[in-house]
Amino acid sequence: MTAVTGLEQAGAVLAAEAARFASFGWMRGTSGNLSVLLSREPFRLAVTAGGHDKGELTAEDVVLVDGRGAAVGGGRPSAEAELHARVARLTGAKAVVHVHTVASVLMGRRQPGGIVLKDLEMLKGIGHPAEGEEVTLPVIANSQDMRVLGDRLEAARDPRMPAVVVAGHGLYVWGDSPRQARHHTEVVEWLLELELAAG
Amino acid sequence: MTAVTGLEQAGAVLAAEAARFASFGWMRGTSGNLSVLLSREPFRLAVTAGGHDKGELTAEDVVLVDGRGAAVGGGRPSAEAELHARVARLTGAKAVVHVHTVASVLMGRRQPGGIVLKDLEMLKGIGHPAEGEEVTLPVIANSQDMRVLGDRLEAARDPRMPAVVVAGHGLYVWGDSPRQARHHTEVVEWLLELELAAG
Amino acid sequence: MTAVTGLEQAGAVLAAEAARFASFGWMRGTSGNLSVLLSREPFRLAVTAGGHDKGELTAEDVVLVDGRGAAVGGGRPSAEAELHARVARLTGAKAVVHVHTVASVLMGRRQPGGIVLKDLEMLKGIGHPAEGEEVTLPVIANSQDMRVLGDRLEAARDPRMPAVVVAGHGLYVWGDSPRQARHHTEVVEWLLELELAAG
Amino acid sequence: MTAVTGLEQAGAVLAAEAARFASFGWMRGTSGNLSVLLSREPFRLAVTAGGHDKGELTAEDVVLVDGRGAAVGGGRPSAEAELHARVARLTGAKAVVHVHTVASVLMGRRQPGGIVLKDLEMLKGIGHPAEGEEVTLPVIANSQDMRVLGDRLEAARDPRMPAVVVAGHGLYVWGDSPRQARHHTEVVEWLLELELAAG
Repeated sequence: MTAVTGLEQAGAVLAAEAARFASFGWMRGTSGNLSVLLSREPFRLAVTAGGHDKGELTAEDVVLVDGRGAAVGGGRPSAEAELHARVARLTGAKAVVHVHTVASVLMGRRQPGGIVLKDLEMLKGIGHPAEGEEVTLPVIANSQDMRVLGDRLEAARDPRMPAVVVAGHGLYVWGDSPRQARHHTEVVEWLLELELAAG
Repeated sequence: MTAVTGLEQAGAVLAAEAARFASFGWMRGTSGNLSVLLSREPFRLAVTAGGHDKGELTAEDVVLVDGRGAAVGGGRPSAEAELHARVARLTGAKAVVHVHTVASVLMGRRQPGGIVLKDLEMLKGIGHPAEGEEVTLPVIANSQDMRVLGDRLEAARDPRMPAVVVAGHGLYVWGDSPRQARHHTEVVEWLLELELAAG
Repeated sequence: MTAVTGLEQAGAVLAAEAARFASFGWMRGTSGNLSVLLSREPFRLAVTAGGHDKGELTAEDVVLVDGRGAAVGGGRPSAEAELHARVARLTGAKAVVHVHTVASVLMGRRQPGGIVLKDLEMLKGIGHPAEGEEVTLPVIANSQDMRVLGDRLEAARDPRMPAVVVAGHGLYVWGDSPRQARHHTEVVEWLLELELAAG
Repeated sequence: MTAVTGLEQAGAVLAAEAARFASFGWMRGTSGNLSVLLSREPFRLAVTAGGHDKGELTAEDVVLVDGRGAAVGGGRPSAEAELHARVARLTGAKAVVHVHTVASVLMGRRQPGGIVLKDLEMLKGIGHPAEGEEVTLPVIANSQDMRVLGDRLEAARDPRMPAVVVAGHGLYVWGDSPRQARHHTEVVEWLLELELAAG
């Protein structure tokens, strides 16, 4: 994928990514949102517009926001754009995925202190060794206040783990590009589905 | 989506919605039916024709009914058209979805007095707060008499909840448009799948 | 669907039905086979050819067999063609579906004496009342001898039930047309998935 | 399928197979890899290139390796290419599939000494009798050292079973062609999903 420089181009990429996640059932209703960084100085993030069916987005269904998630040049970003911007600033990620998966909510309920993973080859897909080391996927409490939610994410996140589970809510996952963020999301969800089925 | 004014246009919209639900496995066999309101005065509702595969509907596979679910101008509506009409009159909804999902039948069996939901961000997708409030999805007993079934739905429904589970049967869900009814259906089904898997 | 009169036309119909079932994961590997009756006097049944991927059949991947499942005019029918022919003769069905589903094998293991179903609207999709009556889906022991398997099916089948579970094997389902057999298959599988998940 | 003689042709075949497995959710992230034999003397195996999304491979995303998994003529094979080559040499297979499925990891965890299967018609799809005989799908411990992993596979494999589960990792499956390897993979995964759901 070449660098994403224009807003409409970013919108097209996000629409394609969203359609893929929607086809997995991870963006039911109008849930979830995706973002990709256009520039870090000044901070400009393209975020999917709220209220749309994520399987039907077009290249225009995107809003440009600054480092606090406020709209730049029009459009009404979803409230969660603030958290996307914070994740991108905090982690250095260039793409953020937020999806609502059943497995993430159930595993967050079962292991509210963090989901422990170990001895799984799939861990390599999120930068961890396949064997011998315990890895914890952080779980944070939900909040409707994006500042509070961001503080929790900042406090709980593990710099070596590109994802956080929000209890009763879903997943935030990030990466260096929309494609890497997608792969991280798929890997984290696979791990959660595995542990959920393990009982 | 622009306002649906003609019967064939309504049929095309319903066919597309039905194909989507069928792809999810929520309309197996020839089960389920969808409707969209054409006018309230006189009351005219377009309902999918009975007996068809819901993944193969065309714009012609639709019947126009009045406020009691009786055909207007030909065609043989399914018996459940009467309930669709009643839901549209009772709730003010402009679109009604009826699907047969495994999760709704199992959760209706497990919690016959109503399915309690709480502290789930996804509740916002059906107009409820994400945190702190218990929400109940009503469950009503099944009946082959549409008047009885409608009475039960009317007695049990919560005006703030755009859905009812019919025990041993499936889901009725509604909204201001076919797309909103779809989103409500996806959200309710997601919640039911979550609670089912929670055990 | 118009009457199926030619072998290639039958092959095209069966290929489309098989691709659909394969997409559901009900014909993994090269498992399962489908058939449609071309004439009853003389008895001529078109059966999908064995050994092929059921998602990749063409109109040519079909064999014509007589009432004992023996090839008429060339081709090598699968051994199970004999059972398809027997089901079509015994039940008067014009189309037979044989698929390998996980739910049918697991439910046959759990309830080897027959799978009891009751108070489910979906039962109407296979000709039974939705309420008040116990319905039993027969389960028969598997055999590699098609005559033995046919005898078991004949002894166990309920004339009011268009399906039999073969233990450790899968489902046989039939109907008046490929489409009706498909709908019966979808309904039976939905019921089995429901009861399996009910635990 | 005609014999695969050229590298790009092999790449096209592997890309199509990978897209299919990816659509099943068996190659999440960039996990898994596929290979097909081009010649045995000298030993030349085409293996999917590492690091790519397996649903987006093109005919160029393939690397040619020798009998030890070392690149021939450029490209950077994945580390697992060595194991693909060893499986093809050891078993005489012409195609090898490596996928990461949830069911294989969970069943390997549940039955680390080998997964016992019996009285299942589906066993015929991997060359075993449907009835009366116990069949064991070997499970081997994972390793990051491909030589160690290959030794374990060689020690544990059953010549009559075209598959091995790697604990905490996934499945290796093989066959006489990419299509047969696909069918073996589908059958093994079906069996694993069945036993997993059987509890």
